[in-house]
Amino acid sequence: MKIILDAMGGDNAPDANIKGAVNAINKVKAEVVLVGKEDIIRSKIKEFYGKEMEEISERLKIQNSTETIEMEDQPTVAIKHKKDSSMVVGFNMLKKDEGDVFISAGNSGALLAGATLLVGRIKGIDRPALGGILPAYKSQLLLMDCGSNTNCKPINLLQFAQMSSIYLKNTYGIEHPAIGLLNIGTEETKGNELVRESYKLLKEKAEQLDINFVGNVEGRDAFSGKIDAIVTDGFTGNVFLKTTEGIGKFVKRSLVESFTQNLFSKISYLIAKKPIKSLSKAMDYKAYGGALFLGVKKPVVKAHGSSDALLFEYTIIQAEKFVENKAVEKMIEAFNNQKKD
Amino acid sequence: MKIILDAMGGDNAPDANIKGAVNAINKVKAEVVLVGKEDIIRSKIKEFYGKEMEEISERLKIQNSTETIEMEDQPTVAIKHKKDSSMVVGFNMLKKDEGDVFISAGNSGALLAGATLLVGRIKGIDRPALGGILPAYKSQLLLMDCGSNTNCKPINLLQFAQMSSIYLKNTYGIEHPAIGLLNIGTEETKGNELVRESYKLLKEKAEQLDINFVGNVEGRDAFSGKIDAIVTDGFTGNVFLKTTEGIGKFVKRSLVESFTQNLFSKISYLIAKKPIKSLSKAMDYKAYGGALFLGVKKPVVKAHGSSDALLFEYTIIQAEKFVENKAVEKMIEAFNNQKKD
Repeated sequence: MKIILDAMGGDNAPDANIKGAVNAINKVKAEVVLVGKEDIIRSKIKEFYGKEMEEISERLKIQNSTETIEMEDQPTVAIKHKKDSSMVVGFNMLKKDEGDVFISAGNSGALLAGATLLVGRIKGIDRPALGGILPAYKSQLLLMDCGSNTNCKPINLLQFAQMSSIYLKNTYGIEHPAIGLLNIGTEETKGNELVRESYKLLKEKAEQLDINFVGNVEGRDAFSGKIDAIVTDGFTGNVFLKTTEGIGKFVKRSLVESFTQNLFSKISYLIAKKPIKSLSKAMDYKAYGGALFLGVKKPVVKAHGSSDALLFEYTIIQAEKFVENKAVEKMIEAFNNQKKD
Repeated sequence: MKIILDAMGGDNAPDANIKGAVNAINKVKAEVVLVGKEDIIRSKIKEFYGKEMEEISERLKIQNSTETIEMEDQPTVAIKHKKDSSMVVGFNMLKKDEGDVFISAGNSGALLAGATLLVGRIKGIDRPALGGILPAYKSQLLLMDCGSNTNCKPINLLQFAQMSSIYLKNTYGIEHPAIGLLNIGTEETKGNELVRESYKLLKEKAEQLDINFVGNVEGRDAFSGKIDAIVTDGFTGNVFLKTTEGIGKFVKRSLVESFTQNLFSKISYLIAKKPIKSLSKAMDYKAYGGALFLGVKKPVVKAHGSSDALLFEYTIIQAEKFVENKAVEKMIEAFNNQKKD
């Protein structure tokens, strides 16, 4: 297996990308190909580790590329014109089967445009979407769409539900994943027009498409562990995702502060450290890696824009599993069978 | 001052409403008028406290009403036809100056319909909105709209920003409250059409309307303590609010569990109890009481539907402050002056 990593994308590129790849290399069986400026990557490795890349692992590789897509670049224009950017080169490797999965923490819009334009949609799916895994009580929650489709139609949300269901069955072994529709109340009359229409469509098609649709779900019940996936448009999904992140930061900050108020609380922290760390771990969305771009013909993983070395490491490990599980092949197969029905 | 409390509204009515009023009565200077079935309220008080209401406090009163608006009732229909419901009776008291503020934990739609139809909008405000106060790092965050307007136009969001600004200045003494627009990125090209158009309008009008508009704000930065208010449509706002609540529940559950895993963690909990409680307190949105329905001519407070006695107590105390601060009078004045400009 070959994991293609965009070495130039993300807020902390290329340092964090390179360190993440080096940290991950002994935890995966796959080769990891760093796509980016070869001379920079080589000299960084020498600087960080005091040796040549080949001395670290023979499974670490480089694919040279001379350009970089910046955060300010207009997505479609960048994909069409920056032919030698790390992102376009990475996508083309994936397309030509010179790699099995592509990971990038770069410009999200460009990544989505590239995935659709260069890799292509699975037949039967109108809009691919970003599926992110969030921590939930003793389990996890798949959020579809995390932010790639700002404007959606009911048919898109139905397909997000289908993709979630297929993905969770095949990758997590959940037999009948509970799929909810994110709403502001549980009654079917609640919400805006998109949500009300999507509710009707989901209810109508659930049985036929083998979706265990559990109805409307409010944010307050999302993390209970009883829901396996939540479907929503990309705007609402992204607000949901980032609110979760904001609260997480707030809790962490307040927790640290409440334990450093005075000498007594500092002493209690020394004793309570372990349980608190186990809490932080349970809540750490980073441990779940990047978001999967579901609905395209090959595995594409969007790493968090602010990924550090640890998060790149997690995302590389996750990407290997994503390929091993044949999640994309099974998605293609499922939509293919559906068309024949 | 007279605080009118709908004794029959909410998931735990009338028990929690009655207990909350009794608990609050010695913490406020105002009279508290319980609106509902007099015989039931009197017998409940006797059951809970073993004495007559008058023996508890002479500032506790009852206004009899024979009907109740249920959660399933169609809002406008209920307000128009259930003339002797606790909610309609309460609103009419407020309208006729027989009370200074009305609190209800009942059917949200009916409460909003009643506030608009029976109390009336402030001139210059197209859509009143629910402003909820959430905890933030060492401060608080006003969220407008928390859920009363599912579909909004840019002009509504502009007015939410104006109302937030006026309210925070007058009630919290914040000189230049920082008002942000909830979005999925900070760049002005981000978001759906409503948000992009609202951004333009806010930027154009901010100076003239004395709004300290700080631009787009993502959920991840909302709780930093640097933003005083976030404006958004009621659908997105309600998702934001309930996601916050969901994470809060998840954190609490995980925290308790991480401290009860084994004997050692149980012992650490005994020692770490105090800082953990101080964290829980900092994060407890309940301590901030109900949501204020801003934009109507009289003070209306929407208590949380699942309010318990403690939350009713907080909400009554908050309502007294709301009246003391003359928040509504100042809002009317500000919009009146603006029209003359």
